[in-house]
Amino acid sequence: MARPLEYGEAVLLWEEAKGRTFLVTLEEGGVLHTHRGAIPHDELVGRPEGTEILTSTGHRFFAFRPRVAERMMKVRRRTQIVYPKDAGWLVLALDLFPGARVVEMGTGSGAFTVLLAQLVGPEGRIYTFDRREDFLENALSNIARYGLLDRVEAQVLEAGAPFPVEDADAVFLDLPDPWLAVPPAYAALAPGSPIALIVPTAEQLKAVFQALEEAGFVALEAVEILERKILVRQREGVRPFERMVGFTGYLVSARKRVSS
Amino acid sequence: MARPLEYGEAVLLWEEAKGRTFLVTLEEGGVLHTHRGAIPHDELVGRPEGTEILTSTGHRFFAFRPRVAERMMKVRRRTQIVYPKDAGWLVLALDLFPGARVVEMGTGSGAFTVLLAQLVGPEGRIYTFDRREDFLENALSNIARYGLLDRVEAQVLEAGAPFPVEDADAVFLDLPDPWLAVPPAYAALAPGSPIALIVPTAEQLKAVFQALEEAGFVALEAVEILERKILVRQREGVRPFERMVGFTGYLVSARKRVSS
Amino acid sequence: MARPLEYGEAVLLWEEAKGRTFLVTLEEGGVLHTHRGAIPHDELVGRPEGTEILTSTGHRFFAFRPRVAERMMKVRRRTQIVYPKDAGWLVLALDLFPGARVVEMGTGSGAFTVLLAQLVGPEGRIYTFDRREDFLENALSNIARYGLLDRVEAQVLEAGAPFPVEDADAVFLDLPDPWLAVPPAYAALAPGSPIALIVPTAEQLKAVFQALEEAGFVALEAVEILERKILVRQREGVRPFERMVGFTGYLVSARKRVSS
Amino acid sequence: MARPLEYGEAVLLWEEAKGRTFLVTLEEGGVLHTHRGAIPHDELVGRPEGTEILTSTGHRFFAFRPRVAERMMKVRRRTQIVYPKDAGWLVLALDLFPGARVVEMGTGSGAFTVLLAQLVGPEGRIYTFDRREDFLENALSNIARYGLLDRVEAQVLEAGAPFPVEDADAVFLDLPDPWLAVPPAYAALAPGSPIALIVPTAEQLKAVFQALEEAGFVALEAVEILERKILVRQREGVRPFERMVGFTGYLVSARKRVSS
Repeated sequence: MARPLEYGEAVLLWEEAKGRTFLVTLEEGGVLHTHRGAIPHDELVGRPEGTEILTSTGHRFFAFRPRVAERMMKVRRRTQIVYPKDAGWLVLALDLFPGARVVEMGTGSGAFTVLLAQLVGPEGRIYTFDRREDFLENALSNIARYGLLDRVEAQVLEAGAPFPVEDADAVFLDLPDPWLAVPPAYAALAPGSPIALIVPTAEQLKAVFQALEEAGFVALEAVEILERKILVRQREGVRPFERMVGFTGYLVSARKRVSS
Repeated sequence: MARPLEYGEAVLLWEEAKGRTFLVTLEEGGVLHTHRGAIPHDELVGRPEGTEILTSTGHRFFAFRPRVAERMMKVRRRTQIVYPKDAGWLVLALDLFPGARVVEMGTGSGAFTVLLAQLVGPEGRIYTFDRREDFLENALSNIARYGLLDRVEAQVLEAGAPFPVEDADAVFLDLPDPWLAVPPAYAALAPGSPIALIVPTAEQLKAVFQALEEAGFVALEAVEILERKILVRQREGVRPFERMVGFTGYLVSARKRVSS
Repeated sequence: MARPLEYGEAVLLWEEAKGRTFLVTLEEGGVLHTHRGAIPHDELVGRPEGTEILTSTGHRFFAFRPRVAERMMKVRRRTQIVYPKDAGWLVLALDLFPGARVVEMGTGSGAFTVLLAQLVGPEGRIYTFDRREDFLENALSNIARYGLLDRVEAQVLEAGAPFPVEDADAVFLDLPDPWLAVPPAYAALAPGSPIALIVPTAEQLKAVFQALEEAGFVALEAVEILERKILVRQREGVRPFERMVGFTGYLVSARKRVSS
Repeated sequence: MARPLEYGEAVLLWEEAKGRTFLVTLEEGGVLHTHRGAIPHDELVGRPEGTEILTSTGHRFFAFRPRVAERMMKVRRRTQIVYPKDAGWLVLALDLFPGARVVEMGTGSGAFTVLLAQLVGPEGRIYTFDRREDFLENALSNIARYGLLDRVEAQVLEAGAPFPVEDADAVFLDLPDPWLAVPPAYAALAPGSPIALIVPTAEQLKAVFQALEEAGFVALEAVEILERKILVRQREGVRPFERMVGFTGYLVSARKRVSS
């Protein structure tokens, strides 16, 4: 049975005319002001997801709980985030499952942490580290907003320091100098388990491949993911959008081997 | 603590020289014969994942439990499968989480069902339908091989028939004529919940957009995902591979609105 | 021997700091005002191409005759233009050569006409048609600016009207309804000669393929061209740019068969 | 007036069923044997381009003079060639025109030389160099086959050696170590004139950028070109092909500045 929208929840308002979205946390007496009129929070509470709502000026919006990609895109950003297009690939590379214990080095703004926390579920655990305390604080506030704080342990950690975790099911690195974190990642992973990471340049890709091979990782792979949005209109026809994101980063995955 | 490899498990053997992989189910007395020599299953049992193994002719392999992308690619195929590059995007579009109840119409070979079953976990449920009983049988045998049968309910169903499911958290369609399944999908979904689907041509993309809008879906999006594999070699340098998959399908997502 | 820059010529000023470019026609007493200071035209005249010039505020520019891609991008635009990335493909599809007689239907802003006129040379001829006289006027002014008017014959023509040309070496179509111009193109072409065109949507692509086949064209091909700009920096490393043009149009080529 | 096909000409036979092509040089008594039957050369001579011809087993072909992209793809290959998708971009980067004098270092199999020779016309001149005499011989035989030998001067030359050319309108480099040829290119070019080149890896891209900047080139640009072939079928619909070329090389262009 569908659970109605409640105070304290993050809700996404989707504008019909242009597809723009607004994320609000519902508060008593709160009002969302848009360029197309106002929406009082109180009118949303108690209604089901997907509900239609008209602004004060008569424009139509729909109210949804944000999906994980929308939660990722709407974090308060202090850093570059992992984009949904890349995050999808990483979910498979890291072989996530409910109950998994996953290390993330380079919390950043916590966007990918939100996805990890959703997919490992209440019985899983995300150990997330960043060298900057202010990034961690911002990330934790993003994670708290989506009600996932109980699955996440965060800690300040320098790039080369050992991870205070053993037998991890997966490790994800998002750092300017990911090679520093490769030996600690090897130490923290269960045998055979996957590592994945994102790097911005060809040179870093090469450097991190070398670090992975030296540390004892095998089955190295690198890809980049291009997402093309397609415009579908009944009268004018179908074609890709004129603008696209050309690049975010190179994605890498590998697995921990054990010496015999 | 790392669980050793056991009889009855599916194990991936990764060949160091070329990166080729072989999936075997470990059996007493079983032997994997490759062009680079033989590997007796008995030598793998009891050893940890990631373990090194030499073939009868001295070539080096490593033994891993297959990650989900590898399990998907290694299903016995009776149909075109959903590729990992697209599956990652769909995980986010469908907003999967542990415990979710998900409908899949168009089981095909069950590759995507394997991913869905992994991500919803033991407390989730995948209701998967196909019009062809022989496809279902093959898919179930693939799902059973990976030990996920207890999370999956499969049933023969025609494309336009109602789904015997209510308040589903997500619906995924992979059909030649997905528009037929759009009204049943709307009926089966909880308010606000996402639908996603894959279609092979621009014309089908347009037709399914129309069906989605007419059935009461909003926030329609279409993309295609291009994955470029990158070749990283320490001496020769970094560049994309010369060949790539140019196209698999258009991916669509939308959400169920409710009328006020 | 290098010809110095002269009054009356179009000259491209390339800003070292950011790579921005400015196209000016050199005039006695003229001054280019940029956000980085002023450059008097008189200082450029008599100097060789590639010359360095400092603005009034000490910023460094270099003066070049514009290459054809730059001339194309700098036309005064009244319409969408054919982009250089697509124009390159079209040069080969149309099999251009010095002396060729080429028909262009849909002059638009004349950007592609400029390229055609350059490549057929003084002994070639471009017959360019547009249904809108104001477009033709603007296009001719662009073509005149680059000194190519003597190779171009322009005329107002409706989309379905016969081309007043025979035995053309190539025909290029850039129209909202290119199928209307396919039979006139067939009539105007020499046997075996190529046609090429650009269309914006999948539906138009299909419609124009049908028109081409019905009119007697064979060897039909369609492509799209993606250009990714690469950022090369000695310290930070190599990676694609973050933004790119995602789509401009589908390109088509075919050849006129003759019935036996 | 259309010129009929003659003995001694290279002719492309295009198979209707599958779009396969065969390039033959027409000879008295010659016969093309295909998997779909035989075509005697004598039946083609005297007929116009675009003519239909049935094989001995009744399959339909059409006879065309090859367009330049087809001539490029059909050269006898001793090396990797410049692909048409990249060649189109290079035509614009090199700002080719009838009468131009162009240097090519790294003749390879002569595919790009064929395009250069076509576009500079009988009054232009291609100076092409390769360190390997056997490559030059093969390339010249390819160029001769297409009747373009009179526009091409070929010579064995080591990568770092000065080009025996002055005031060239453009220089193109296709070498394993293009940085060696950058200073000779600078010396050979007219002031302001363009250089373009192709390199296979990110590392080489960076190295050649450095060489270009040090030698006195400005306005450096790097791109890669992706060509996606589109499948257009009236019944099944429109979609990109499933396989594509993922990478050929990075393309670079720059211009010679002059010191003041």
